[in-house]
Amino acid sequence: MGSVFGTLFRISTWGESHGGGVGVVVDGCPPRIDLSESDIQFDLDRRRPGQSEITTPRKEADQAEILSGTFEGQTLGSPIAILVRNKDARPEAYTEMSEKFRPSHADYTYQAKFGIRNWQGGGRSSARETIGRVAAAAIAKKVLVKEYAPDLEIIAHVKSIREIEASVSADDLDFDTVEGNIVRTGDPEAAEKMIELIKEMRKEGNSVGGVVECVVRNVPPGWGMPVFDRLEADLAKAMLSLPATKGFEVGSGFEGTQLTGREHNDAFRMEGDRVRTKSNRSGGVQGGISNGENIVFRVAFKPTATIMTEQETVGLDGEDTILKGRGRHDPCVLPRAVPIVEAMTALVLCDHAMRQRAQCGGS
Amino acid sequence: MGSVFGTLFRISTWGESHGGGVGVVVDGCPPRIDLSESDIQFDLDRRRPGQSEITTPRKEADQAEILSGTFEGQTLGSPIAILVRNKDARPEAYTEMSEKFRPSHADYTYQAKFGIRNWQGGGRSSARETIGRVAAAAIAKKVLVKEYAPDLEIIAHVKSIREIEASVSADDLDFDTVEGNIVRTGDPEAAEKMIELIKEMRKEGNSVGGVVECVVRNVPPGWGMPVFDRLEADLAKAMLSLPATKGFEVGSGFEGTQLTGREHNDAFRMEGDRVRTKSNRSGGVQGGISNGENIVFRVAFKPTATIMTEQETVGLDGEDTILKGRGRHDPCVLPRAVPIVEAMTALVLCDHAMRQRAQCGGS
Amino acid sequence: MGSVFGTLFRISTWGESHGGGVGVVVDGCPPRIDLSESDIQFDLDRRRPGQSEITTPRKEADQAEILSGTFEGQTLGSPIAILVRNKDARPEAYTEMSEKFRPSHADYTYQAKFGIRNWQGGGRSSARETIGRVAAAAIAKKVLVKEYAPDLEIIAHVKSIREIEASVSADDLDFDTVEGNIVRTGDPEAAEKMIELIKEMRKEGNSVGGVVECVVRNVPPGWGMPVFDRLEADLAKAMLSLPATKGFEVGSGFEGTQLTGREHNDAFRMEGDRVRTKSNRSGGVQGGISNGENIVFRVAFKPTATIMTEQETVGLDGEDTILKGRGRHDPCVLPRAVPIVEAMTALVLCDHAMRQRAQCGGS
Amino acid sequence: MGSVFGTLFRISTWGESHGGGVGVVVDGCPPRIDLSESDIQFDLDRRRPGQSEITTPRKEADQAEILSGTFEGQTLGSPIAILVRNKDARPEAYTEMSEKFRPSHADYTYQAKFGIRNWQGGGRSSARETIGRVAAAAIAKKVLVKEYAPDLEIIAHVKSIREIEASVSADDLDFDTVEGNIVRTGDPEAAEKMIELIKEMRKEGNSVGGVVECVVRNVPPGWGMPVFDRLEADLAKAMLSLPATKGFEVGSGFEGTQLTGREHNDAFRMEGDRVRTKSNRSGGVQGGISNGENIVFRVAFKPTATIMTEQETVGLDGEDTILKGRGRHDPCVLPRAVPIVEAMTALVLCDHAMRQRAQCGGS
Repeated sequence: MGSVFGTLFRISTWGESHGGGVGVVVDGCPPRIDLSESDIQFDLDRRRPGQSEITTPRKEADQAEILSGTFEGQTLGSPIAILVRNKDARPEAYTEMSEKFRPSHADYTYQAKFGIRNWQGGGRSSARETIGRVAAAAIAKKVLVKEYAPDLEIIAHVKSIREIEASVSADDLDFDTVEGNIVRTGDPEAAEKMIELIKEMRKEGNSVGGVVECVVRNVPPGWGMPVFDRLEADLAKAMLSLPATKGFEVGSGFEGTQLTGREHNDAFRMEGDRVRTKSNRSGGVQGGISNGENIVFRVAFKPTATIMTEQETVGLDGEDTILKGRGRHDPCVLPRAVPIVEAMTALVLCDHAMRQRAQCGGS
Repeated sequence: MGSVFGTLFRISTWGESHGGGVGVVVDGCPPRIDLSESDIQFDLDRRRPGQSEITTPRKEADQAEILSGTFEGQTLGSPIAILVRNKDARPEAYTEMSEKFRPSHADYTYQAKFGIRNWQGGGRSSARETIGRVAAAAIAKKVLVKEYAPDLEIIAHVKSIREIEASVSADDLDFDTVEGNIVRTGDPEAAEKMIELIKEMRKEGNSVGGVVECVVRNVPPGWGMPVFDRLEADLAKAMLSLPATKGFEVGSGFEGTQLTGREHNDAFRMEGDRVRTKSNRSGGVQGGISNGENIVFRVAFKPTATIMTEQETVGLDGEDTILKGRGRHDPCVLPRAVPIVEAMTALVLCDHAMRQRAQCGGS
Repeated sequence: MGSVFGTLFRISTWGESHGGGVGVVVDGCPPRIDLSESDIQFDLDRRRPGQSEITTPRKEADQAEILSGTFEGQTLGSPIAILVRNKDARPEAYTEMSEKFRPSHADYTYQAKFGIRNWQGGGRSSARETIGRVAAAAIAKKVLVKEYAPDLEIIAHVKSIREIEASVSADDLDFDTVEGNIVRTGDPEAAEKMIELIKEMRKEGNSVGGVVECVVRNVPPGWGMPVFDRLEADLAKAMLSLPATKGFEVGSGFEGTQLTGREHNDAFRMEGDRVRTKSNRSGGVQGGISNGENIVFRVAFKPTATIMTEQETVGLDGEDTILKGRGRHDPCVLPRAVPIVEAMTALVLCDHAMRQRAQCGGS
Repeated sequence: MGSVFGTLFRISTWGESHGGGVGVVVDGCPPRIDLSESDIQFDLDRRRPGQSEITTPRKEADQAEILSGTFEGQTLGSPIAILVRNKDARPEAYTEMSEKFRPSHADYTYQAKFGIRNWQGGGRSSARETIGRVAAAAIAKKVLVKEYAPDLEIIAHVKSIREIEASVSADDLDFDTVEGNIVRTGDPEAAEKMIELIKEMRKEGNSVGGVVECVVRNVPPGWGMPVFDRLEADLAKAMLSLPATKGFEVGSGFEGTQLTGREHNDAFRMEGDRVRTKSNRSGGVQGGISNGENIVFRVAFKPTATIMTEQETVGLDGEDTILKGRGRHDPCVLPRAVPIVEAMTALVLCDHAMRQRAQCGGS
């Protein structure tokens, strides 16, 4: 329970940070999609630790193996199983954690729920779990582009690190620019300041959070559902299912509550034979369904819980104690969160595209 | 697709604002819970239009009829069907809408998706659909208190209307205070200003949005799931599935991104034999699972899309045109959104309580 | 739990035999399907009691009301709720059952499971529950014919009553012939003997069972799924979910175990540009997927449990006792089971047609 | 779609007979169940090919590796991923099949559905897929015994091979006797004749089918659901989801249609403080819910489709042609089907046990 996502394009992720490995099974993928391991590896490499001087120095190759579901380079329509072996494990780095709960981690709640936990490196609550999501999403993107939305673009970037904010519009956001700096922001000027701040935090043994923004272009009108499975509801769930997230907003979001209806409404107008809106405070969704404008949303990530400081906590036997942070961790998860936000977006969209075709036909 | 919610305590809502009625079927309810129509009516009355001078003057009694699933005043364990007939329908008020898309409503997207829509009063996208949720949640609350968490309290209130903000802590929030003012805020001083602003907006034919905050007390540790069905992920989905919502945040939320890890972490300490946190920036959930502290989250509601002004829009035949708002609408949805936010919270918690018992036993 | 069926064309039935009524919510129906109450009433009338001299004399009009999901005679794509009020209830006929378990009924198991039961007329275990299925299936049939398989035919009939067997091939089975006799068999000669036997059984206060056979013509190749959701697996579940069923077999079924592989295999051959099989021991499904041949299966129904005889049983307080059967019941459920078997078939096929389109495209 | 089974104890199987391997992910397993690879290997060994002179001579060790979800010998409550590598693959044995459809196999329907298929050894339709089920069920059995039904016994055996029928009652069926002969029947006398027949069939290049019977003892009353998820409905689906199955019957089954109600009903009587039935034509389920008696059902398996004979068929390009069977195959699948039937039974029961606890409490 809890590790299955999607109705039609359905994924099951599995694995702890320490143990045999992590992976995913994708059930429901359309047949005859070209797929090889290199398609998956690209995004896994954007996600993996050790890729730059502002991420954790842990080195993990995170090499994906496709175990099933393809034949002669194409998907079969049967489940696609992907395995990434765990390497570079140092369980001895975690022995203190076997007896103490790390503040603002999942140690205590896992223990309270299950009465057992794999205390080596976070176990199932480790961000390493997201490997399965990213691998599955690489397939979802191929399905979306081939079958449903040939010009689809999903681009996330770091909108802010603490108080440093990127200045770039949803229309101008550009993948190459984002990938052109190690913090993955769409604003090269802000990038330098963000990098500076993260390095400073690391030096202090401290950590910092921020906001990831995601823009989706060229989604056809009509994806999404009334009522519970509104497109923004499923996106919100997808984003809040990521480790370290504390908030989600779409379009005008929380700031939109400062406007009156007259200021906030998006007037319609024709542009050729397309119905367009003059503004996009709706963020590309109205009544839970895409309207053809850019889908724009933002996700808040808290500062990394692991810090190199003494912290008050309690132990397994119910005694107050002190924990000294150790290990190799990201002082800021946002640069590596960018491809993960894109991945969850692709998974939500692919599932809704298939649901739309099932119910309403068309492509 | 899209109108079913929950894994074990599973509800299916149905109905348009105009037509035979609206309702819900609850599948999976535990047996032998005391239940009568009056249990349901209480929250329906808090939700219904026409209850105060700052809501829509539409008068709807919204009388619930339990059609199945109970016997001699107790639940049977079989599906509970609840029906609320539609009354006071004035389809003629909507004829203009049959040919024009209301800006920032679901008119255009429903048409794009389904190729047909019930243009009378919003059809399925009407807030009237939430009646089924509120009715089902009245049952969920009884299940939670009887079977899982006897001291559970779910209290929502209006945290802000545009720039007017209530000043009350999660610990001090009090149901009677909230229900003691027609805007349903936990801060009586802010209430007056909020009411003033809403009245002013109505006079101008304008509208306004705001933020609803919800506090849940006495949730036992251990509810929620790792990975996709994290408690906050399911809450986020539940909230973003409500009409007019644009954002969700839990605990420190978006503001938490301004803190460093050292400032943000919640230290643990023992309090008798309970593990407690000294602060609650986590908002009661860690790693997707409740930690026993208050669950605290906020939901952004945009200003009502229906305003009494001429607006640019397009018509069914693809021509630019002008729409003049009419009808009887809330200038601000937040007072009536309060019981709906509580309802969705109860539905999420009841489902997770049952999932916890299924997997991990205990109560 | 347990009252929801289908993945995409998803129905939730509700209701007990005594209480406000019975009904169904259909979620996921495609939009723009012509639908009126008379479409539903046709099959409900084939299912209702009191329709002939060999069914129960209970008179129930079973008039369906569509409460939502349609507009100007067409489906909206939103949930379709259907209500049938209970009438002609005589709870006093069941008072003895409040204290004693009827043998081979669900009285004891419901009590053991839920600790409560509606003892009036079988409650949720009553065949009256199937009204919701039949109503939903009337919609499913319209969807199938309009969107997926224009020449689709689903014809069930009574294959045998005790030892009296109808002699008619799957190819020759004809709807008008079936509806032309009150026992609903495709063999008019057998019909008379079957009717005679049922009348005799009623006179004796006894009851009798038999086998319903169903033939589905013009299903395109490709419906169904590998592994768990094989078409025959979902049909088996659908059939065994009907009251009084004890068995399911497809194609050669249990008798097929008497053949060797050489005798059993269905050779392929071309017929124009269609791949056909020379025989049809597969029953129209191979590897869980339709092959374009007639789908043929049979369902065993036990003799009605309610008989007009003294029977040994136990009471609520755990004492051995005697129950004397009373009430108005069918001495044989098969004539009324025919439209219900067709209904469950339509529900399974509609769901699989939509799943096929979602995953593999095409119509 | 199609490779996920279960609501709470949910498994996703994956893998083709040729390719990286086969396996399963179990989501929802309770925590703190003792589990090691040897627990899984026992049933895998009963299932694997090459175990006796009447099964296929293919040699596959089918060694299971647990990749996740356990820690220090216990389950964590997180997904358990199990991998079995493919070995001994001889794709060259299948080249003819790349161009011709094997009669009564899934070759044609997979091609019709997906437009692609892995023609090496049956791909996803291979019985090799059941490895994942058997591995998952080994866990389900441990959960059932530890948490829900300490004395539970699930024993299947070969009831008949073509016309040779085992003579043993549900009460007398004994695991050691079944495992004491290579055909896995509960009747040692019949065993010899069955083995003789299978050997004869193999010599002729022919094949044979039969019936597997399964008895489940010590299931508490109350497992199962009204309406769609009746226990026998879920068992029927589980069994018909197995390769080569053509029928399912519970309790009196098809033969029960030869009895009158007076002959068929199971009278209740008290036995100490337990409610018992005097006969068990219900097969342990009434109204979809277990009544505490032995659950007894039978499953029909058709003769193996692969035979060593020339058969008429068609080719990929739509031409009539001849196929000469080759390869190493079981002349009779039943001996190896026995542990698979038990496995599917355990999966259904474990899911229902968890659903029962979730809704109705108790253990």
